[in-house]
Amino acid sequence: MELLEKRIISDGSILPGNVIKVGSFLNHQIDVKLLMEMGKEVKRLYEGENITKILTVEASGIAVATAFAAVMGTMVVFAKKHGTSNISGDVISCRTHSYTHNTDYNMVVEKQYLTDRDRILIVDDFLANGQALCSLIDIVTRSGAQLVGCAVAIEKGFQHGGDKLREKGIRVESLAIIDSIENGVIRFRR
Amino acid sequence: MELLEKRIISDGSILPGNVIKVGSFLNHQIDVKLLMEMGKEVKRLYEGENITKILTVEASGIAVATAFAAVMGTMVVFAKKHGTSNISGDVISCRTHSYTHNTDYNMVVEKQYLTDRDRILIVDDFLANGQALCSLIDIVTRSGAQLVGCAVAIEKGFQHGGDKLREKGIRVESLAIIDSIENGVIRFRR
Repeated sequence: MELLEKRIISDGSILPGNVIKVGSFLNHQIDVKLLMEMGKEVKRLYEGENITKILTVEASGIAVATAFAAVMGTMVVFAKKHGTSNISGDVISCRTHSYTHNTDYNMVVEKQYLTDRDRILIVDDFLANGQALCSLIDIVTRSGAQLVGCAVAIEKGFQHGGDKLREKGIRVESLAIIDSIENGVIRFRR
Repeated sequence: MELLEKRIISDGSILPGNVIKVGSFLNHQIDVKLLMEMGKEVKRLYEGENITKILTVEASGIAVATAFAAVMGTMVVFAKKHGTSNISGDVISCRTHSYTHNTDYNMVVEKQYLTDRDRILIVDDFLANGQALCSLIDIVTRSGAQLVGCAVAIEKGFQHGGDKLREKGIRVESLAIIDSIENGVIRFRR
């Protein structure tokens, strides 16, 4: 998506370890107008798929999911990263590793919010090695709901998480795929 | 706001310790259409205030803030609850206590996202004792940006955090204020 790629070039920056910082518009400060435009593109891509719910994981995924849901007219469910006193009843949980924070955590969703009548689109801001998406896919599978596919803002193609999921037959739509970062130059997949 | 009050009555439940569970539409599963309606009401309340940014705190505040921003045409900034490897540069941080999770944490915002040209609306899903809002207000004050007021989905009036802020002259608009919960009956402020 050209609008997003241009924004990554103009406003993104590269931190050590090929971490792409897009905190000025995607995951700290959020340009909601941009997110709504991204939502229109995802709606177009998944037209006719009758998605009922968007599943994401806290924290920065929530903004993307909420904007997409506003455009697509669906509900959002977000997985929590640890049990809280506000979670009750039956839950589905999945142990996950965060490379960004270098910690393990439990992703938790209450069972009642994913039913066998739901058609789920998984949404996140970033896709790198695919650990978070794998956990969300695992949760959807175990819930009995139907997974339609995934929609991600920025995929770091050189970490191959997205390609591994596609090889498994899972539909993954990324609005910008970065194939390489060399000497501070970002190259997008065509 | 009648729409929200009705939804709290029909879909909310009360957990031990007067914790109000609204996970089916506000902070685990999210009814984005409802949030957009709430955003219209907040837009009406703050008409003419020229708000440039909505400030909230992760995680469940992000959904409310994003929906309000979609309606009001503003940016969102969310405070992070701990330092992450993606935060760089100058930050403003504030030590905060969470009663829900019974833990202390740092709320962190990068300085560059709150400037003296910004007019800030602070948004959150819940207001109880007001600890989170106080920390966000402290961050806005120290950033040099101007605080316009606060907009909250559900205020637990019987914990008096909102009234203490109003006594200090801070504008706090809550879309539903619960004044008491007795024998499972929720009474709203008129």
